[in-house]
Amino acid sequence: MKRTSRDIRTANRYEVLRQIIAASPTSRQELAAATGLSLATVATLVGELLDLRMITEVGFEDSAGGRPRGLVAVNASGGALIGVDIAETYVHVELFDLGLNVLARAEEDVRPSESRPEQVVGHVAAVVGSVVAQAGIEGARVLGVGVSVPGQVDRATGISEYAPNWDWHDVPLLDLLTEHIAYPLYLDNPLRASAVAELWFGAARGRGDAVVVNLGTGVGSGLILGGGLHRGVSNSAGEWGHTTIVLDGRLCRCGKNGCVEAYVGASGIMLTLRESSADSPLLHPEDQTATIAALARGLAERDPVAVKVVRDTVRYLGAGIADLVNLFNPEVVVLSSWVAAALGEPLVEEVRGAVARHALPRPNAATEIVLSPIPTDPVCLGAATFALEGALQSVGQRQQKRTPSARAKAHHRQ
Amino acid sequence: MKRTSRDIRTANRYEVLRQIIAASPTSRQELAAATGLSLATVATLVGELLDLRMITEVGFEDSAGGRPRGLVAVNASGGALIGVDIAETYVHVELFDLGLNVLARAEEDVRPSESRPEQVVGHVAAVVGSVVAQAGIEGARVLGVGVSVPGQVDRATGISEYAPNWDWHDVPLLDLLTEHIAYPLYLDNPLRASAVAELWFGAARGRGDAVVVNLGTGVGSGLILGGGLHRGVSNSAGEWGHTTIVLDGRLCRCGKNGCVEAYVGASGIMLTLRESSADSPLLHPEDQTATIAALARGLAERDPVAVKVVRDTVRYLGAGIADLVNLFNPEVVVLSSWVAAALGEPLVEEVRGAVARHALPRPNAATEIVLSPIPTDPVCLGAATFALEGALQSVGQRQQKRTPSARAKAHHRQ
Ligand SMILES: [Zn+2]
Ligand SMILES: [Zn+2]
Repeated sequence: MKRTSRDIRTANRYEVLRQIIAASPTSRQELAAATGLSLATVATLVGELLDLRMITEVGFEDSAGGRPRGLVAVNASGGALIGVDIAETYVHVELFDLGLNVLARAEEDVRPSESRPEQVVGHVAAVVGSVVAQAGIEGARVLGVGVSVPGQVDRATGISEYAPNWDWHDVPLLDLLTEHIAYPLYLDNPLRASAVAELWFGAARGRGDAVVVNLGTGVGSGLILGGGLHRGVSNSAGEWGHTTIVLDGRLCRCGKNGCVEAYVGASGIMLTLRESSADSPLLHPEDQTATIAALARGLAERDPVAVKVVRDTVRYLGAGIADLVNLFNPEVVVLSSWVAAALGEPLVEEVRGAVARHALPRPNAATEIVLSPIPTDPVCLGAATFALEGALQSVGQRQQKRTPSARAKAHHRQ
Repeated sequence: MKRTSRDIRTANRYEVLRQIIAASPTSRQELAAATGLSLATVATLVGELLDLRMITEVGFEDSAGGRPRGLVAVNASGGALIGVDIAETYVHVELFDLGLNVLARAEEDVRPSESRPEQVVGHVAAVVGSVVAQAGIEGARVLGVGVSVPGQVDRATGISEYAPNWDWHDVPLLDLLTEHIAYPLYLDNPLRASAVAELWFGAARGRGDAVVVNLGTGVGSGLILGGGLHRGVSNSAGEWGHTTIVLDGRLCRCGKNGCVEAYVGASGIMLTLRESSADSPLLHPEDQTATIAALARGLAERDPVAVKVVRDTVRYLGAGIADLVNLFNPEVVVLSSWVAAALGEPLVEEVRGAVARHALPRPNAATEIVLSPIPTDPVCLGAATFALEGALQSVGQRQQKRTPSARAKAHHRQ
């Protein structure tokens, strides 16, 4: 999509709040230095955030030879945000304050027999109600609920166009959720949720171009380009899991052959293990989580089967990530989701070597490859961030109508 | 790279001039409607371009019930731009007026024995001198020279880091060119030059997200994302030719196996022809151009060998372009460069079918696949456009210092 001046203003608002969350308390001068924005722009944006009670003034610090500088900090209790991660087998919900600290969490299992949209929505409504009750906060303080659902999502209409695990087609998920949940809702998918989590709170913070690679049951990428999320023209960019790495190769659950996901998704890794050692004790048929955990332990103990399966997987994974490096030329590739977390640094080490063999030298030299540093569920955090962005965006629109006075006020505050 | 407000102002300046070049004469009101910018912003930018004599006022048109509207048009004779396409076997140069009409062109062959940097630079200096003389213009009117060289280019330092055809490594090309050419120089590669040509004058005009696929001796993509060129962190984004389509497949000239280029570059297509029919009369050993031309004729005549070779090529090409569609979710994929031009619409037809089989339905439905509509050498045109952008950018920087008065003037003009 084309970027407008309004997009830039919104992105700047995000960036200033991001920086305040990262480094409270802080001064307008520090914010200008950290974001590269002018002091006047920072002052305007800080004024908006103060008006919204998302941040507060918390005193002054001396500046060498100048007037004392006003300090601001995130107003953690100024509101609550909820992130919902609808995954293949569970619904996980976290409630955050405005500093994005977790105040409450809840989870319900989704059995395969309960995967009709109405049933899943029932689970979501139950856990959202549960975290609000647990946190003991008033409903009016909930600024929004971000909901991540796997597959292809039409954000504008709130339709889950295709969810591969449950074979959902064109489910009006937002409408269904609205029947049960009164807070503002923001729908998207886990690729974009984890990318936004890295952009605000993780390894992509302050970076212009970053690719967040999700390695889980499903596989895909979230793209941070030019300092913002790249969605593509129909909000379906980043489908790296279904790019071809072996023409006419393994059958993928999308129906095509030779997709990256068929080799590096959790079931692809299980298939590689089965092909290499069908009676391996590492293999827990029907249980991806247990199998990947066993592989991780095996890797730590230098079990030859585990080492071989990870190495075989990295042959595909390294080539696939090298494709992302060659195409996007990013500053950083972040490995996220539960398979990456389980296999950890030993996997990342192997991946770095394989990418160096497959990528062109120039983009390879410019790219770091790291594990996601986010300690909690990045999809919940990212979904909550969508709600935060939504709140900031609607605020900005209300704000614009009284820009001149708000701006004047902000200048007086300097 | 992160985008700043200044980047947006520059992009808006580009977009207004682009629109004026496309539709002269035009009014500020039409420009605002076509670009989505506010009338005030358009008026400011038009004022800047008038001050620069890149456009002129050319009278008035009646508006229904309002004051007559001032019309502006590109001031074609306000300056000249030169585009240089350094290719594997030739140096091609075109000189343009500010309407990007070709005023003069010249070409020199580069024999394999003459491919040392100093020799190539000698050719460039000769043809640049020749077009300036042919066009009979004063040197002072040349606003800049854009130079495209294959491979990986460090734009900031002007170094050709790696040119695969001549095995150049870290050649200080800009310094060498500066010794012979006195005009402002802008160095980049053909992927980005043809992408910018499509953005300004071709199938990507007015599009937010577009991928320009170059099919020639070398193969790669230029990326238009968010309405501007995506360069990546080290100006090497878009290296689609060296993404892996067949793990452990054909050896590529980059030294890796199974790259897209090894199958769909001109020599890859020749190898496919040789493998399929070693003594085919279509095959002109050592002559890529003649072989591709023969394939194109064979395709038109439904020659079974030609049809098979193109179909085999499209198996790889379709999967490779589907990867771009899945990753970028663009509005349009433009097929450019000489192999695409030679094989033409019959190739595009086949590609559309193959992409539909390989890409996910949602991004596939959102993407058009078209042949480049640019009738001349898109690399020369794009290189000249880099010079135009460079002139607009430096202008904008001078301009900013006197913004208030320029803006006031522009408002009075409305
Ligand atoms: Zn697939
Ligand atoms: Zn290659």
